[in-house]
Amino acid sequence: MNTTSTGMDDIFLKIIAGEIPATKIYEDEHTVAFLDINPNNKGHALVIPRTKYRNIYDADSTALSCMMVTAQKVARAQKEALGADGVNIVMNNEAPAGQEVFHAHIHVIPRFTDDGIFAHSKHTAYAEGEMQTIADKIKEVLT
Amino acid sequence: MNTTSTGMDDIFLKIIAGEIPATKIYEDEHTVAFLDINPNNKGHALVIPRTKYRNIYDADSTALSCMMVTAQKVARAQKEALGADGVNIVMNNEAPAGQEVFHAHIHVIPRFTDDGIFAHSKHTAYAEGEMQTIADKIKEVLT
Repeated sequence: MNTTSTGMDDIFLKIIAGEIPATKIYEDEHTVAFLDINPNNKGHALVIPRTKYRNIYDADSTALSCMMVTAQKVARAQKEALGADGVNIVMNNEAPAGQEVFHAHIHVIPRFTDDGIFAHSKHTAYAEGEMQTIADKIKEVLT
Repeated sequence: MNTTSTGMDDIFLKIIAGEIPATKIYEDEHTVAFLDINPNNKGHALVIPRTKYRNIYDADSTALSCMMVTAQKVARAQKEALGADGVNIVMNNEAPAGQEVFHAHIHVIPRFTDDGIFAHSKHTAYAEGEMQTIADKIKEVLT
């Protein structure tokens, strides 16, 4: 499915508009939160901005802040209501990072001791001096 | 190592104070960003608040917003400087969610097509009616 065109990417706008059903758990002026239909754990929620941005690269910084504050509210509620032992806040941006719907969204994934939902990830190592070289490259454009 | 006591958890305060070395890439009034010494990909950065919070559960919402805005700046800079094809924004909260240092931090992980750093995660499914029941439980405490 071509998720870079309309169709899949309008799903979240349709959920906001109430045109397609979703199990909403929270709404405010800037954000909406609802349960993911393919959860890592039960209670796994998505937080989206009412205004459509593709992802973190183009999102308005205020919208992004509001999303994070809503994610915090959801995380606290999952802990209280479901007895979660922890939570992963995950935002995947662009397909190589696992983004599937191109309307910015934050996953709020309740975790339980030894639930084993995430396999170990790969790590890499820097050669001598390489860490500073890469930091310098990033700093040069980060102002 | 007992990471719930002091010691490991003071590492980030020592980095902020310049008492132990870190490859910093950004600093502002509320946040500091530096490269992770055990990166998933080269350029993998951590964003931390200057004020120590344990994680998303106790963090001040303004501090959390500032962290997210800094994460956005770092993500954009990684894309421009390193040619990243995408980025994962990840915040692990409490040990069952993979948190290792108990000073709130957001991972900004640059991604490259087919880098394969994250293995597929497990998913679960709701029984008939269960999704709404769980949503209702969360909504009851999420106000």
